Amino acid sequence: MLDKTTRVNYLFDFYQSLLTSKQKNYMTLYYLDDFSLGEIAEQYSVSRQAVYDNIKRTEAMLEEYEDKLGLFSKFQEREQLLVALKQQLQPSDHAALEIIERLEKME
Amino acid sequence: MLDKTTRVNYLFDFYQSLLTSKQKNYMTLYYLDDFSLGEIAEQYSVSRQAVYDNIKRTEAMLEEYEDKLGLFSKFQEREQLLVALKQQLQPSDHAALEIIERLEKME
Repeated sequence: MLDKTTRVNYLFDFYQSLLTSKQKNYMTLYYLDDFSLGEIAEQYSVSRQAVYDNIKRTEAMLEEYEDKLGLFSKFQEREQLLVALKQQLQPSDHAALEIIERLEKME
Repeated sequence: MLDKTTRVNYLFDFYQSLLTSKQKNYMTLYYLDDFSLGEIAEQYSVSRQAVYDNIKRTEAMLEEYEDKLGLFSKFQEREQLLVALKQQLQPSDHAALEIIERLEKME
């Protein structure tokens, strides 16, 4: 199992384009830049509780998007299949391996 | 270029989970079951204009989701790469071809 932070980071990666700027800013500061709730609150001149509520709501939205679209779970399934596929090939299968690399980079 | 109906059908496939029930119903009747606006209006006891407006708004939403998430364009790119990948393999590469088939079915 992934820990919660890692999962939220993945979901944020997949669905951030569906969030508002404020949601994106708070999530980036909290999860990527490791700011505390208090530090974010100070920077935006809002209460610590407001930041907390916004982040909790955003996390719930990310899980809802994942329930509906399943992009993260499909990503994991595809990754596993691509690993299995590479194991079926020879190091000399340059062209095929290169295409698999492009598929991996798309994720 | 895809014609408009085909494109809307694809976008609907990818993003219908993000639509309301009413939006899904109207889109299904109009695009999949080939009902006219008048027939849908009659079935739901609303005006033809209301159905038309709802469908136009939904089409715009689908294009917005595609702008943000690009699932249809990634699907097309992956499909092309999987076709190219199969061309690199021999008919005797059963295991690899089977994995590619599973990747194709995930789309």
